Amino acid sequence: MLIDMGKRARQAAQTLALAGTSQKNAALTSLAEQLLEQSAPILTANAQDVAEGRQASLTEALLDRLTLDPARLAGIASELRQTVSLPDPVGEKFDETILPNGLKLHKQRVPLGVIGVIYESRPNVTVDVAGLALKSGNAVILRGGSETLRTNRALVAVIRATLERHGLSPDAVQFIDSPDRALVLELLKLHEYVDIIIPRGGAGLHSFCRENSQIPVITGGIGICHIFVDESANLEAALPVIHNAKTQRPSVCNALDTLLVHRMVAADFLPRVVAYLGEAGVTFRADPAAYACLDRLDATLKALASPAGPEDFDTEWMSLVLGLKVVDNLDEAIAHTNAHSLGHSDSILTADSGHAARWVNEVDSAAVYVNASTRFTDGNQFGLGAEVAISTQRLHARGPMGLRELTIYKWVVIGDYHVRP
Amino acid sequence: MLIDMGKRARQAAQTLALAGTSQKNAALTSLAEQLLEQSAPILTANAQDVAEGRQASLTEALLDRLTLDPARLAGIASELRQTVSLPDPVGEKFDETILPNGLKLHKQRVPLGVIGVIYESRPNVTVDVAGLALKSGNAVILRGGSETLRTNRALVAVIRATLERHGLSPDAVQFIDSPDRALVLELLKLHEYVDIIIPRGGAGLHSFCRENSQIPVITGGIGICHIFVDESANLEAALPVIHNAKTQRPSVCNALDTLLVHRMVAADFLPRVVAYLGEAGVTFRADPAAYACLDRLDATLKALASPAGPEDFDTEWMSLVLGLKVVDNLDEAIAHTNAHSLGHSDSILTADSGHAARWVNEVDSAAVYVNASTRFTDGNQFGLGAEVAISTQRLHARGPMGLRELTIYKWVVIGDYHVRP
Repeated sequence: MLIDMGKRARQAAQTLALAGTSQKNAALTSLAEQLLEQSAPILTANAQDVAEGRQASLTEALLDRLTLDPARLAGIASELRQTVSLPDPVGEKFDETILPNGLKLHKQRVPLGVIGVIYESRPNVTVDVAGLALKSGNAVILRGGSETLRTNRALVAVIRATLERHGLSPDAVQFIDSPDRALVLELLKLHEYVDIIIPRGGAGLHSFCRENSQIPVITGGIGICHIFVDESANLEAALPVIHNAKTQRPSVCNALDTLLVHRMVAADFLPRVVAYLGEAGVTFRADPAAYACLDRLDATLKALASPAGPEDFDTEWMSLVLGLKVVDNLDEAIAHTNAHSLGHSDSILTADSGHAARWVNEVDSAAVYVNASTRFTDGNQFGLGAEVAISTQRLHARGPMGLRELTIYKWVVIGDYHVRP
Repeated sequence: MLIDMGKRARQAAQTLALAGTSQKNAALTSLAEQLLEQSAPILTANAQDVAEGRQASLTEALLDRLTLDPARLAGIASELRQTVSLPDPVGEKFDETILPNGLKLHKQRVPLGVIGVIYESRPNVTVDVAGLALKSGNAVILRGGSETLRTNRALVAVIRATLERHGLSPDAVQFIDSPDRALVLELLKLHEYVDIIIPRGGAGLHSFCRENSQIPVITGGIGICHIFVDESANLEAALPVIHNAKTQRPSVCNALDTLLVHRMVAADFLPRVVAYLGEAGVTFRADPAAYACLDRLDATLKALASPAGPEDFDTEWMSLVLGLKVVDNLDEAIAHTNAHSLGHSDSILTADSGHAARWVNEVDSAAVYVNASTRFTDGNQFGLGAEVAISTQRLHARGPMGLRELTIYKWVVIGDYHVRP
C-alpha cells in the first residue's frame, strides 16, 4: 500500500518540480480561502478527535494542542498567505562558471523531491508543511498523530481538492490515513520513492526514525541551550536576556536550559538572577559553586534553588527550571557547552570581542549567539519565513529549515560537442 | 572498541575544525614528501598484500587495482599537492544580513565533523580521502578493503606521524585495522560520533550501508547514463561525443550506457554509430526499432548488435556495451531517461534551444548536459579539485563532492542584548 503511495508521490513530485511560481501561489492562496470556507467539516472532525482524546484521558495540554477553533484556522490560513509571499527558490541559478575548455557550468536549484514528515498532535503542522513543500516544489507524505486522524483527513481532503482545481496533482500531498505504527516503519524503508524524512516530535520519535530509516533523517527540534555570562558582560542588561531565553516560551527547543557564569562575577550576579527570574516562577538547579553564591539571599529566594543532580546539565527542561553553573573561564564555558549542548543554540554575553570570536568559532552548535537570547533560532525570526524543522544534524542544513532548505541543486553543463581528453 | 575510536575522532575533529589553512597545508605538503621518503615500507607492505591476494586467487583486475609502485605513489603525492593548492572552504562567511531589529546574522562555513569512509581495494583512496578530509577540517574513520590491510596500515602510519609532527591530532585519521565485517556494522551505528558515511564501491556496499546505517549515507558512484541524439543534432559532431562517453573509460560511473536516437534521424545515424564505435570494440544491444535500422550494414558490422533483452536498459554496463533505442520525440526521451537513469549524468545533443532547456529542466539527474560527453562529471573536470565521491542522492550535495561539499554552516547571530518580543 505504501509503495503505491510512494510511486504516486514520486510522479507528482516530477510534475510539481516544473510548476511555475504563479501556479503554486494561486493554489496556496486558494487553499487559505478554502480552509476558512470549509471550516465547518474541519471543525466537526476536530471536535470528534478532541472528544475521543478526552475519553482516552489525554492530558489537557495535549488536548489543547490538538484543538482547532476558528481563530486557529485563521492563523493557519494566514501562515499560508505568508508562504505565498516568500520568494520561490526553485530555478535559481548559482555558481556559474565557464571552464578553460569552454564548457559552461552552473548549478540550478531544484526541489528535494519527496519529503516524508512524521509528527505528533498539532494539526497546524499538516497545513504548514504541505504549504512549504508545495511552494518549494516538493511532494509530501504526511503521517500525523493517531489522535488527530479525523482532523488531518478533513484538512488533507481540502488540500487535495484545491491542488486538483489548480491543475496540480493531488498526489503531491498524501496522508497515511491509519494509526498503524507498522506503516511508519514501512515509510522509513521507501528509499526509492522518498528522499528525506523529517520527524517532528520528541527524542523517542527521532531515535526511532534514525534507527529504522533507510532514508536520510533530519533530526532536530531538541536543544539543551546555554548562555554564558562572561566576566565582562553588562550584568544589568544580561538579566532580561536570560529572563527572555528562559521564560518567554519555556516548552520549546530554543529555550534556555543552563546558565554558565564566570567565577569573577558569580557571587554578585547569581543572586540577582534568582531574584529576577524567581519572580517569573523559575526554579534552579545549582552546581556547588553556584549554590554557595546564593547564601546571601533570604531563605524564601534561596529555597527556589536546589543542588544540581548528576543528570541536570544533560536535561532539556521544557519548563521553568534553569541549571546554574560557575565556570572558571571561557575555556571551561566552551568545553562544558560542547559537552552538554545538543548543538542547537548557545549564547555568550560579553563585552570582549576576542571572547565573542572564540565562542562563535569554537562552540559547535547550529546557531551561536553573541549578546542575544537563544529564542531567536526560528525561521520567522531569521527572516526565512515559516520553517519545516530546526535541524541539529550536520548534513544539508543546520538550524531553521525554510523553503530554500527544502531544495537542492542539479549541475547544468552546456557544451559545443565537447569530449573529455 | 569502535566507540573509543569515535570519541577520539570527535575530539580530533573539534580541534582540527579550528586549525588554520597554513597549518593544514604544511601537514599535507609534508605528507606528500613523507609518502615518497618512506616508500620502502609502504611498497613492502603492498607487495605482501598483492602476494596474499594472488594466493587467494584475486582477479588480475583486482590485483592491478590494489598494486602500488613508485609511479603510483608519486601520483598519490601529486594529488595531495593539488589539494594543498585548492582554496580552504572553512571559515567562509555568506548570506550576511541585518534584521530589522538590528540582529546581525550570517552563515559561517564549518567542517561536517567526522566522516566514515568505507571502500574497497584501491589504496590511493586512503590518502586521497584523508587529504581532502584534513584540508576541509574533518576527521575521518577509514575502513578499507581487507585485501589492502597491510598497505593501508603502512599509509595510515605515515599520515598519523605527519599529523603529529605538525601539531595536529593523529586521531583525525583513524583506520579500522581489521577485516572483521562486524566492525562495519558497528561503525554504521556510531551516530553520536560520526556525521556522515561515504561508501565507495558497488551497489551491494551502498545498499548494505543504507539498510544498516543510523548515520546519513551519501550514496552514489553508480550511473546508467544516457545521451539523446535529437532530430536537430549535428550528427557528424555527435559521433566523437558518443565515442568519448562510451569508450574513454568504460568502467566508470559517468560512462555512457544507453544511446537514445530520435526516430527522424535513426535510420541514417544508427548505422554510422555502429560503424564508428564498432571499430573501438563496442558491441550493441538494440531495441526492435533500432535493430531494424541496422539492416543496411554489412553482416560483420550488424553482428556487433543483438536485440536488447528486458534488463538491458536498466544495466550499468561498465564495459564496451552500448544500449540503442529509438524514441519518437523529446517527451519519450525524457520519460525513458527519468525512468531508467540512476540520476547521475545524462546529455542531449541538439541544435534546438527549446529542447535543450526542457532537457535541462525535466531530466532529474545530478548532472544534465547539453552537447557534451557525460564523462565530465568529475571533481577535477568541474574545477572543484579532487572529489571524495559523486553523489546521486538528493540531500546535501549532488554530483562531485569536493572540499566545499565536505563542509556545512553554522548560523552566527550578533546582538546587543536582544530579546525576542
